[in-house]
Amino acid sequence: MTPVHLLGIPHDEHSSFVRGAAEAPPVIRAELFSSAFNMWTEMGIDLGAPGILVDEGDAVLDGSHDAWEEIEAAVLRVVQHGQPTICLGGDHAITHPIVRAFRKRYERLSILHFDAHPDLYENFEGDPRSHASPFARIMEERLVDRLVQVGVRAATGHQRDQWARYGVEVIEMRQMERALSAAPQGSLPWRFEAPVYISLDLDVLDPAHAPGVSHREPGGMSTRQVIDILHAIEGRIVGADIVEYNPRQDFAVVTATVAAKLLKEIAGTMITSARRPV
Amino acid sequence: MTPVHLLGIPHDEHSSFVRGAAEAPPVIRAELFSSAFNMWTEMGIDLGAPGILVDEGDAVLDGSHDAWEEIEAAVLRVVQHGQPTICLGGDHAITHPIVRAFRKRYERLSILHFDAHPDLYENFEGDPRSHASPFARIMEERLVDRLVQVGVRAATGHQRDQWARYGVEVIEMRQMERALSAAPQGSLPWRFEAPVYISLDLDVLDPAHAPGVSHREPGGMSTRQVIDILHAIEGRIVGADIVEYNPRQDFAVVTATVAAKLLKEIAGTMITSARRPV
Amino acid sequence: MTPVHLLGIPHDEHSSFVRGAAEAPPVIRAELFSSAFNMWTEMGIDLGAPGILVDEGDAVLDGSHDAWEEIEAAVLRVVQHGQPTICLGGDHAITHPIVRAFRKRYERLSILHFDAHPDLYENFEGDPRSHASPFARIMEERLVDRLVQVGVRAATGHQRDQWARYGVEVIEMRQMERALSAAPQGSLPWRFEAPVYISLDLDVLDPAHAPGVSHREPGGMSTRQVIDILHAIEGRIVGADIVEYNPRQDFAVVTATVAAKLLKEIAGTMITSARRPV
Amino acid sequence: MTPVHLLGIPHDEHSSFVRGAAEAPPVIRAELFSSAFNMWTEMGIDLGAPGILVDEGDAVLDGSHDAWEEIEAAVLRVVQHGQPTICLGGDHAITHPIVRAFRKRYERLSILHFDAHPDLYENFEGDPRSHASPFARIMEERLVDRLVQVGVRAATGHQRDQWARYGVEVIEMRQMERALSAAPQGSLPWRFEAPVYISLDLDVLDPAHAPGVSHREPGGMSTRQVIDILHAIEGRIVGADIVEYNPRQDFAVVTATVAAKLLKEIAGTMITSARRPV
Amino acid sequence: MTPVHLLGIPHDEHSSFVRGAAEAPPVIRAELFSSAFNMWTEMGIDLGAPGILVDEGDAVLDGSHDAWEEIEAAVLRVVQHGQPTICLGGDHAITHPIVRAFRKRYERLSILHFDAHPDLYENFEGDPRSHASPFARIMEERLVDRLVQVGVRAATGHQRDQWARYGVEVIEMRQMERALSAAPQGSLPWRFEAPVYISLDLDVLDPAHAPGVSHREPGGMSTRQVIDILHAIEGRIVGADIVEYNPRQDFAVVTATVAAKLLKEIAGTMITSARRPV
Amino acid sequence: MTPVHLLGIPHDEHSSFVRGAAEAPPVIRAELFSSAFNMWTEMGIDLGAPGILVDEGDAVLDGSHDAWEEIEAAVLRVVQHGQPTICLGGDHAITHPIVRAFRKRYERLSILHFDAHPDLYENFEGDPRSHASPFARIMEERLVDRLVQVGVRAATGHQRDQWARYGVEVIEMRQMERALSAAPQGSLPWRFEAPVYISLDLDVLDPAHAPGVSHREPGGMSTRQVIDILHAIEGRIVGADIVEYNPRQDFAVVTATVAAKLLKEIAGTMITSARRPV
Repeated sequence: MTPVHLLGIPHDEHSSFVRGAAEAPPVIRAELFSSAFNMWTEMGIDLGAPGILVDEGDAVLDGSHDAWEEIEAAVLRVVQHGQPTICLGGDHAITHPIVRAFRKRYERLSILHFDAHPDLYENFEGDPRSHASPFARIMEERLVDRLVQVGVRAATGHQRDQWARYGVEVIEMRQMERALSAAPQGSLPWRFEAPVYISLDLDVLDPAHAPGVSHREPGGMSTRQVIDILHAIEGRIVGADIVEYNPRQDFAVVTATVAAKLLKEIAGTMITSARRPV
Repeated sequence: MTPVHLLGIPHDEHSSFVRGAAEAPPVIRAELFSSAFNMWTEMGIDLGAPGILVDEGDAVLDGSHDAWEEIEAAVLRVVQHGQPTICLGGDHAITHPIVRAFRKRYERLSILHFDAHPDLYENFEGDPRSHASPFARIMEERLVDRLVQVGVRAATGHQRDQWARYGVEVIEMRQMERALSAAPQGSLPWRFEAPVYISLDLDVLDPAHAPGVSHREPGGMSTRQVIDILHAIEGRIVGADIVEYNPRQDFAVVTATVAAKLLKEIAGTMITSARRPV
Repeated sequence: MTPVHLLGIPHDEHSSFVRGAAEAPPVIRAELFSSAFNMWTEMGIDLGAPGILVDEGDAVLDGSHDAWEEIEAAVLRVVQHGQPTICLGGDHAITHPIVRAFRKRYERLSILHFDAHPDLYENFEGDPRSHASPFARIMEERLVDRLVQVGVRAATGHQRDQWARYGVEVIEMRQMERALSAAPQGSLPWRFEAPVYISLDLDVLDPAHAPGVSHREPGGMSTRQVIDILHAIEGRIVGADIVEYNPRQDFAVVTATVAAKLLKEIAGTMITSARRPV
Repeated sequence: MTPVHLLGIPHDEHSSFVRGAAEAPPVIRAELFSSAFNMWTEMGIDLGAPGILVDEGDAVLDGSHDAWEEIEAAVLRVVQHGQPTICLGGDHAITHPIVRAFRKRYERLSILHFDAHPDLYENFEGDPRSHASPFARIMEERLVDRLVQVGVRAATGHQRDQWARYGVEVIEMRQMERALSAAPQGSLPWRFEAPVYISLDLDVLDPAHAPGVSHREPGGMSTRQVIDILHAIEGRIVGADIVEYNPRQDFAVVTATVAAKLLKEIAGTMITSARRPV
Repeated sequence: MTPVHLLGIPHDEHSSFVRGAAEAPPVIRAELFSSAFNMWTEMGIDLGAPGILVDEGDAVLDGSHDAWEEIEAAVLRVVQHGQPTICLGGDHAITHPIVRAFRKRYERLSILHFDAHPDLYENFEGDPRSHASPFARIMEERLVDRLVQVGVRAATGHQRDQWARYGVEVIEMRQMERALSAAPQGSLPWRFEAPVYISLDLDVLDPAHAPGVSHREPGGMSTRQVIDILHAIEGRIVGADIVEYNPRQDFAVVTATVAAKLLKEIAGTMITSARRPV
Repeated sequence: MTPVHLLGIPHDEHSSFVRGAAEAPPVIRAELFSSAFNMWTEMGIDLGAPGILVDEGDAVLDGSHDAWEEIEAAVLRVVQHGQPTICLGGDHAITHPIVRAFRKRYERLSILHFDAHPDLYENFEGDPRSHASPFARIMEERLVDRLVQVGVRAATGHQRDQWARYGVEVIEMRQMERALSAAPQGSLPWRFEAPVYISLDLDVLDPAHAPGVSHREPGGMSTRQVIDILHAIEGRIVGADIVEYNPRQDFAVVTATVAAKLLKEIAGTMITSARRPV
């Protein structure tokens, strides 16, 4: 089996309302490796087997270089060997330098983006690196050939314009159930040809399922719905991020448990999909 | 676009087990207008545009008159101009005087009532104005020509008798999924001819989604399910209430966030439906 | 109507990670009999009518005999009269001696087991009575002719082997929605011939719905989904347990409210099913 | 050693704002007897030794008689043998019928009353049995020769008048530290000649220490301060109540743990003081 | 009795880590006026008597002018009549424009500042209006002749330099108990000649007492300690602010209850002190 | 300034009732290094200055050797250079192998032990390595010449016997205030000649201050009281542990914030005391 790499990116300086997401990686790791849980995925893969889940620790962000360069370099160091990698945020701003690194390794890339928000602001309160803007940067720099967003339920007029401008494919939350049931059983409305990068903002989940995020947007997905979509992805998954967990907004560590569960299922689908041709 | 009016009714003196709902309006408003959120609805209406959402403040309930008269008068003052209005409770008892006011402005009225309970007790512990009885009063006084209840999952024998007596149309929670999937796609099992008043008791939501209510009844709707029904209503929506939020039972302000979200979606459907003939 | 008996089993000595489930029975009872709720089931049965729900108190576990013998004897004393009985745990380990007692009264028995975990470990950390192992013991001793598990989402390789070894019928959580929708409307994928025993581990519920359990496993069922399955069971339900509620992990008593609700619905289905032939 | 009796009084019908205190006894008992704790008091008495703490269960309040008569009779049945008894509320209204029962057994009685409120309303919202009024009833009926209140910090003008009218001795919270430090070391400002009854409303504690009460009044005592006063009481303690715990307002069961701790220390001081002459 | 005015300042744009304090005023008001509490202070003043506590609503901050000018103008409008006024934040940054307004009305002013932090940063992350800097601005502009800080327990080297530079009098938290016990009984280590302005950052309280603040700094004061100091202030109190309450960080509304309690005690001391000469 | 080393020991296999303490180190570190706080101690030392606080990461406990040997070796590796070291647990069982390692470097050692419990059980439920027994092992092996316990409030008869047997010096919680006020101002009742090791079980704090521990024992110290004792220690502090933080029992991460605060103050006193002769 291909190993899956895990890299923490403890960065939240471009969060707009509450910070705290930088503190997420160790808290999620604590749940992931807790002896309260086993390491098997729902599809029957043992991530606890030696060499399968490789923890690369956290990226060192010491300000010796521009933070975006530091993140890109740290990710590239792991990604360059071509093995699937999951980055643990941090806030959503980090997806921009992460995808830059992936783009250096993969000629083509499609993003499946789970989020309550489009994160496509040209800039937010003047900050082009805002956690509300990473996908504007990614589309602007043409880092991916396809961006599919699911779960959105807080789009502004400006962000709807950005959808049109950048040709983003969107299944808003209000359309999701119908879109999924219209697809052939067990498959999704889209099929990815290029390597897939999953960007999972935990606020795609309903606050009932994930209270521990910086921005709670009610009306979201259940944890089960996210897992079912993950299992149904066709195509090869080469990268992922799990972002916007905020321990200070959590109830005990209940959302960290959710993040760890989703991490396991993403890792599992990466391993399964690694056998598929790109 | 037609403006939507917002009026607080901070009253909970007829709550039977826990009070606190009177404290809800300012807490929900704080979430509604928080800069953590934008003011766009899921259907693409900007409630933050000037003049769209008109906050009328809270009704003054100073005991100078009978409380029911005070509430009715306060609501009538806003409603008489014929623009859609959302009342923020307070407990469910207030729906009685609110609907009295609406009835003075609208010759016909149908109620779509979201609730875990029928609220049809002839009286509760001797109180005919109890928050468990408003719809008994409303039906008795023939204020509406139609009452449709959805989400009920705690009906007693007496309340089942009241359903029969008053000809209430009910989709109990246990029937809901089947009833919705039996209707033509994207529509509801009922179609309203008369102007519609939405009475939204937040305890129609499962406690996972709305812990901050006076009476938590497990097995309820998800926030998404409520939003989807709101979006699917055909007919013209002229009034609404959002009741039974209890900040003292909440976890942080998570249920206030839910209430604010539903308020936005109700306002959005009011604006969209305003173009429809009555 | 047949009465339903209620017996507490305050035992958690075989819990592997956190204890506290032994404290559950009084907390669930407090919610069950709270005047904040009525005693009617969703199907219209009044459990508050005299003689319907018979509270047998808690089993005395004073160490005068082996705990398994004490539990078995306490249950048998209630069960021997052939009236349906609900045992309130306690952790899941107690299901083993409980089922032993039922087996003495009923020649045939099928178990419908709701759980996030298979609980089929040959032993767990050396303890064959572990709360992770009761169904290994039950199958080994051939106490039931059929074991159906629903909601599982944390099976290890070893437990998958146990499924095969003992011929367990399983609908994993990831298969549940499809399995249910494939069955004829309103019925389940299985139909029980023998008397049915329901073993309800509250962690089958998503932590959003039931945070108060010893092991939170995200991606689970909603309270509504469990109730809908309960309502759809065909066959005669003679016994049940509700286990793994842990007040120390709860948010206020929100999960105790859920446990009390499910207890009411199980009691209701027992009463309805009592008219069916076995 | 003299045994101490424990009797639950699950009654809260005269609570004025939130109910729920009736659900307290089983939840406190669960913490009291939890294997997470030992049963030793801080002064070195083992309440877990056989026959020391006698649990009399809960009073049966089935409405067959007037509730006040039911409570009085249930308490008298336990108290008549002259062994110290702790009643577990329920709300504070129950102290009235409890003290009536004690008065039948003891010719003289002094009350040491811990509370944020004087609970001396002539009546509250028309209810003379309100949980805000028990001490008005007790003083009116001359059931005790002395009432000492400590920790009060929410007295109204009317209640200050009642202090004067009934000759209540009060150490308000704002005076407490000075009053205690003015007394000879290790003793209290008062010394009781008659048998002592301790009435402990948990809201005497600061909400930081006891969030799980119906009325949170900030600025109260720490748990340590209450324990230190309990240890310093001179005189013979023959009875006590612990009231106003409300599981629905609690954070997990943290306040139930506090109630159980205070119960142990009260029992311990009862046993120690039993050797003193009355 | 002199009336006390209450003005909300819902502003938090200069918070450095988490925002949310702008949402505080309505939540605190809801607790303040809740019928769960009476309106009497501990010293026996009825704030609920007509005309005593005058609620001026919230300052309108609509961006039509510079925010600092808007706040200053709104405060001045209330303060100019010379009656004591309490401002409800918002974050601590607002104290700067508030004190500017007070300075226009009062020739001399001393500040008693409760806080875990000195808030004396020359600027914070480049923002001179930061909520970590208001007292640097106030001292720089010589708005007050005296600044006394109590409760500080997170001072940096830079802030210690600022203490020296601006002649700030400080009683750090670690010195507080000794300093208070060294003063003559019932009085404080300082005595104010000029009119007093109280700036109360709720994070001066220990997080056990006030979890609902943007920055939790353990090791702080109890609610009782703050009240005791408030009661002991000699001098005339003409103004106050209560800042940094953050509903999103709160546990239910427990800290809002604390804020409302402290507001009442501040108002009470204002009324009592109004009879003193300035 | 001498550097202080920080080493995580993520071990909780000998916890008796709830596990989870093994997950503590990363969660405490996240709060310690969060940009929400500065790194200055209350006494004015900047722990954020380069080279002052050296994070040695977590001990690798992979089962390749006996866990006690692994812990002892990991600690010795850090401690052997003679610079002060703080170990982050994990449960209290780890103090045994940690102190073994310290004993190899320091000929004499005194322990100042903060705890609600004596942790002196000969064994607990048969486990001599139980987290309830480390100090029985330490005294038995004569690893220290002096053991001083403060804050104890849950001692059993057996543990009181152990106090006598091993000559433990104890200030029980009920004696603490008097003992401290009897000592000369600003000093403690004891003065250490030998190098001091501080063992800080977070449950010495009252649950109001530290809900996030495995065993909540009400009536404990405030965070301020612990800090004041830390500041007053005379003698040279060479080592410390902070144990029993349990993220799963915490409210958000409030207790992790407390642990991080205490860690800073311990580090500060280590640095100050390093100039003292041993």
